Amino acid sequence: MNVRVILVGPEHGGNVGTVARLIKNFGFRDLWLVNPRMELGFEAEAFAAHAKDVLNRVVIVSDLDKAFEGVSFIVGTTAVHAKKTSNVFRISVTPEELAKKAVTIKGTIALLFGRESKGLSNEELRRCDVVVSIPSSPLYRTLNVSSATAILLYELWKAKSERPRGCFEEVSRDNLLWLIRLFDQFSQESSLPVHKRDLATKAFHNVVSRAFISKREATLMMGVFRRNLQIKLKSELDM
Amino acid sequence: MNVRVILVGPEHGGNVGTVARLIKNFGFRDLWLVNPRMELGFEAEAFAAHAKDVLNRVVIVSDLDKAFEGVSFIVGTTAVHAKKTSNVFRISVTPEELAKKAVTIKGTIALLFGRESKGLSNEELRRCDVVVSIPSSPLYRTLNVSSATAILLYELWKAKSERPRGCFEEVSRDNLLWLIRLFDQFSQESSLPVHKRDLATKAFHNVVSRAFISKREATLMMGVFRRNLQIKLKSELDM
Repeated sequence: MNVRVILVGPEHGGNVGTVARLIKNFGFRDLWLVNPRMELGFEAEAFAAHAKDVLNRVVIVSDLDKAFEGVSFIVGTTAVHAKKTSNVFRISVTPEELAKKAVTIKGTIALLFGRESKGLSNEELRRCDVVVSIPSSPLYRTLNVSSATAILLYELWKAKSERPRGCFEEVSRDNLLWLIRLFDQFSQESSLPVHKRDLATKAFHNVVSRAFISKREATLMMGVFRRNLQIKLKSELDM
Repeated sequence: MNVRVILVGPEHGGNVGTVARLIKNFGFRDLWLVNPRMELGFEAEAFAAHAKDVLNRVVIVSDLDKAFEGVSFIVGTTAVHAKKTSNVFRISVTPEELAKKAVTIKGTIALLFGRESKGLSNEELRRCDVVVSIPSSPLYRTLNVSSATAILLYELWKAKSERPRGCFEEVSRDNLLWLIRLFDQFSQESSLPVHKRDLATKAFHNVVSRAFISKREATLMMGVFRRNLQIKLKSELDM
């Protein structure tokens, strides 16, 4: 399991150091920072303790596009999960559910954590394939970013330490995105209000990302969408 | 579940604050410090964030005897677990095994964490009823005390919470079957060979069953299928 921990706009060196330490504690390697609000100085090093090698390898980039280069699956984190499931961008899985999914992924998993002060924005979350939320008390939902990292990397460590791999060939990211694009075309052709079409596409994106979808299953569904879109196109040309 | 988190000889205010926050995050209340090596000042308060009430209630004692007053069960923590069970004081259970046990305990559970610099001594561990150790990489076993607290309180929270599953309202089985039926209608209308249509429906069925699909997501997708099927029906009637 190849995980790239990405901190978006981190504000405190202590948290960056603690996260570096956790990355080594749980047998991972890669820490990326997007547009950090602090310098990597004494504080980060002190908190990293014996994980200074992780800090020395840190990659700093200026935006999410660069942070996502070469990744196969993007995981966002939020404490503000959808109440009554009204916000389709914040419908979340649990850390355990994420871990089950993660063991089936061949490429690099991007694991995104937001700013200490305000987490990840809706815009950032909509770029994620799945959003994970740590169950916590309604009296105080928001965990510190390094506490959240501890829990997620621990669940990933447990999953990768114990589970044999799935028995089917998973769909490639390109094909998965292609399937989602087909659904979107289909959705845009419906008579629903525009914002509903986008939400429906996001719902489809959520579901196919969360499932363990094989190449075969994706191909079959793509066939149906493609044929129906062609038929429609053809009947429009005939008119 | 009644848990008293006890930090033995804590050295850094930031860790005490982070632990206070975690106690509130996971619905617990009590933080005790044995012989702390720092003052509860600005740093602890900053890290506690919205859990200053936990800090305000903190109990400071001078030795373990006082910290154990009124408790029913004592849990120690160590990163140095017994290799081949040679050190009988460090034979440890996993956090999950601890959580399973903890839900059966009626009185107060003391959950003991050691010093940042050197953990709990053998003498301290021998007074514990059970020792728990968080599985981690042999390259760097020792977690920061607040990271360890995050993981243990998270496992205890999961065990005591009634709902193990995610934070959304799952789709009802009736609605799930309805969604699959809509896809099937859509699939049957494509120009694919019949057996492919059935397989595509089965692929869709697999994926939505495997995903954790919410009511909201199902409704959005059903909207798209329904509208498109109506359009098609309508255009056929018009012909």
